[in-house]
Amino acid sequence: MRMVDLIEKKRDGHELTKEEIYFAIEGYTNGDIPDYQMSALAMAIFFQDMTTNERAELTMAMVKSGDQIDLSAIEGVKVDKHSTGGVGDKTTIALAPLVAAVGVPVAKMSGRGLGHTGGTIDKLEAIPGFSVEITTQQFTELVNKNKLAVVGQTGNLTPADKKLYSLRDVTATVNSIPLIASSIMSKKIASGADAIVLDVKTGSGAFMKQLDQSKQLAQAMVEIGNRLGRETMAIISDMNQPLGYTVGNALEVKEAIEMLRGGGPDDLRELCLTLGSQMVFLAKKAASIEEARQQLENAIADGTALEALKVFIEAQNGAPSVVDHPETLPEASYKVEVLAKQAGTVSAIVADKIGTAAMLLGAGRATKDSEIDLAVGIVLHKKIGDSVRAGEAIATLHANQENVSNVIEMVHAAYSFTDGPIDKPTLIYDEIH
Amino acid sequence: MRMVDLIEKKRDGHELTKEEIYFAIEGYTNGDIPDYQMSALAMAIFFQDMTTNERAELTMAMVKSGDQIDLSAIEGVKVDKHSTGGVGDKTTIALAPLVAAVGVPVAKMSGRGLGHTGGTIDKLEAIPGFSVEITTQQFTELVNKNKLAVVGQTGNLTPADKKLYSLRDVTATVNSIPLIASSIMSKKIASGADAIVLDVKTGSGAFMKQLDQSKQLAQAMVEIGNRLGRETMAIISDMNQPLGYTVGNALEVKEAIEMLRGGGPDDLRELCLTLGSQMVFLAKKAASIEEARQQLENAIADGTALEALKVFIEAQNGAPSVVDHPETLPEASYKVEVLAKQAGTVSAIVADKIGTAAMLLGAGRATKDSEIDLAVGIVLHKKIGDSVRAGEAIATLHANQENVSNVIEMVHAAYSFTDGPIDKPTLIYDEIH
Repeated sequence: MRMVDLIEKKRDGHELTKEEIYFAIEGYTNGDIPDYQMSALAMAIFFQDMTTNERAELTMAMVKSGDQIDLSAIEGVKVDKHSTGGVGDKTTIALAPLVAAVGVPVAKMSGRGLGHTGGTIDKLEAIPGFSVEITTQQFTELVNKNKLAVVGQTGNLTPADKKLYSLRDVTATVNSIPLIASSIMSKKIASGADAIVLDVKTGSGAFMKQLDQSKQLAQAMVEIGNRLGRETMAIISDMNQPLGYTVGNALEVKEAIEMLRGGGPDDLRELCLTLGSQMVFLAKKAASIEEARQQLENAIADGTALEALKVFIEAQNGAPSVVDHPETLPEASYKVEVLAKQAGTVSAIVADKIGTAAMLLGAGRATKDSEIDLAVGIVLHKKIGDSVRAGEAIATLHANQENVSNVIEMVHAAYSFTDGPIDKPTLIYDEIH
Repeated sequence: MRMVDLIEKKRDGHELTKEEIYFAIEGYTNGDIPDYQMSALAMAIFFQDMTTNERAELTMAMVKSGDQIDLSAIEGVKVDKHSTGGVGDKTTIALAPLVAAVGVPVAKMSGRGLGHTGGTIDKLEAIPGFSVEITTQQFTELVNKNKLAVVGQTGNLTPADKKLYSLRDVTATVNSIPLIASSIMSKKIASGADAIVLDVKTGSGAFMKQLDQSKQLAQAMVEIGNRLGRETMAIISDMNQPLGYTVGNALEVKEAIEMLRGGGPDDLRELCLTLGSQMVFLAKKAASIEEARQQLENAIADGTALEALKVFIEAQNGAPSVVDHPETLPEASYKVEVLAKQAGTVSAIVADKIGTAAMLLGAGRATKDSEIDLAVGIVLHKKIGDSVRAGEAIATLHANQENVSNVIEMVHAAYSFTDGPIDKPTLIYDEIH
């Protein structure tokens, strides 16, 4: 078998066999197949797409390129949740204890963030003392005991995907549905999930800006998951503005705590209930989505969700007191209001720009090696559909630097206004099974 | 400027600017741009094509990546001829002295062959003593004096093309009209041609099997040449069977000599007269194509073409006696007839298979480092449209090995027969200006 023949076959629109896909991925992982052939294949896939069969085989070939996490020592159906990423997305921080509170085992392996704000681990580390450095045995025991633990990524998971992703990034082959879908799904499957709930973002702040593209990606991932024996569903949720009001690690933890306490932003709560009820249902802890949702609403109302968060934090050496005293989370030295230059109704908030503004304050990493400042970030006061008076604060910067004029300008640039009334954007566009 | 952005631009079907094309080619030549980005760009070009502007800029960028031959010390309009390659194509050996005989300066830089049979230099080296190892000064002097000299490729011509071609070969991006056309034209322009006559082959033995593809390639090259100020034209000629009757280095030289003597195969003579009259016309040695053709026919009839060949051979240390005594060319030890297994009319001769059969005898190089045997090859006795009796010789192998059963089988495999009469194939399909 020769890689050049596989490239030509895909280039000419034919379906690659399982053997051919494994040949390419195994060879690429061990270095027998050079980057320049893989990038040509990736570009051919960009143009010629892949069938559902090819996508599933590619996913499994990437799973098998490295270690696979064995979660069989954990009782129950392990349901993983994955978001394609957005600005202000603190869903996991609230959702994990919420579903754990109703008995769904959450064995979360998580990563650090790049760009925008931090990843889930960065956010959790805003809690004093919190550590994800636990052993595999501790991890298993904690999930069995508390239904929830989060560990940093360990082992050599999907090395083929890591190598291919780096290559795609510099060869203009990132934006390909089969390649994105197999990349995400390979990581979920290698992490040991039995079932998968996907939150595919759509809109100006999402990787997929167009609704139809987002649906295609969701469909592709759901098909791969189901084809590979992992019950998988996806929702399509809005990212035409940041989720909730806060962007920045400690600020987002605070907002997640508020939500579990029964308050917090409507969009965050609705998204957590939507995703959570799917997780509870897939974990067979409820007979219907409606029943699952009721369980979750009860867990918020009766405080068991908040209690699950405290237990989780304490078990991983964090200070559970932050739950009742969020003011003990890291706090920035300067609070600078961004004042509306004009009156009007907010018509758009480009989430990417808010994310970049937060990164400029230090909340996110510009490069892999950047240090992040867990205290800083942005609190929005106005979202799409809200009316604003001239001179009213539309946002507050939480900064550890005095000069934030460039960040203020970026926040201004993110906001658009209109005269007439504007409807709040839809939060959940679709659900794909 | 970032290469990844250029790849994306081309991927999305936009036109690259001159600056972008030079950035890519210069960076690739000096190693700043890695193979994996260039292969992704090549695949994007495969799918999205290039405009005439882009093709011309790409060609010049590759010309400027290395040395350019300065032929200004040679008097007259230097017209170069290029063939896209075929089996039994000894045209240059006959054509160069033919047009030199009527005053067209032929300053030929040539290469060795890979696959099939040798290149022009290999064929010339079948003449005892003949050498292409001459200095630039000798080369110039010889062309000014005799109107003809052939030199091996010197200098660092189009290194970008060499590097890109090797890459395309292993990434399934060879078969792209803009990439083929710019590759060929960059070499012609770097070699110093003022005007260019192209012989684009079409048919089973050609790189381009389909007539419409061959026309597209011809059109692309003519447009590039004219855009870059080199008067360029192309003919489309048949390669549905080998050209002439001989395949193999000394055998082809012999056939070229026969043609200059007024004999030889009709297709070889007609192709030489067609290409030659265009060259004479572009060199401004005749006022019309018809006049040019008459000059060439006269040069064959009155022996001046044959004389030009003798002068040329002698000037480059070869034995001019081969012209009158072709039996002094290297001769193989064994002659083995391939006998028709059935009666019928020849309906097809797959030229590639005849070329491979000749290579198996040693007439061509399987790899760059193979030694070739100048004496061996194949003489066909029957071509398309000829009728054959069962047991009649369709070809004779000239071999320096006793066991040629595999070669015999390959020759048989190249031939197809039919019952009814078959027209001789068209030789010249089209002419493109």
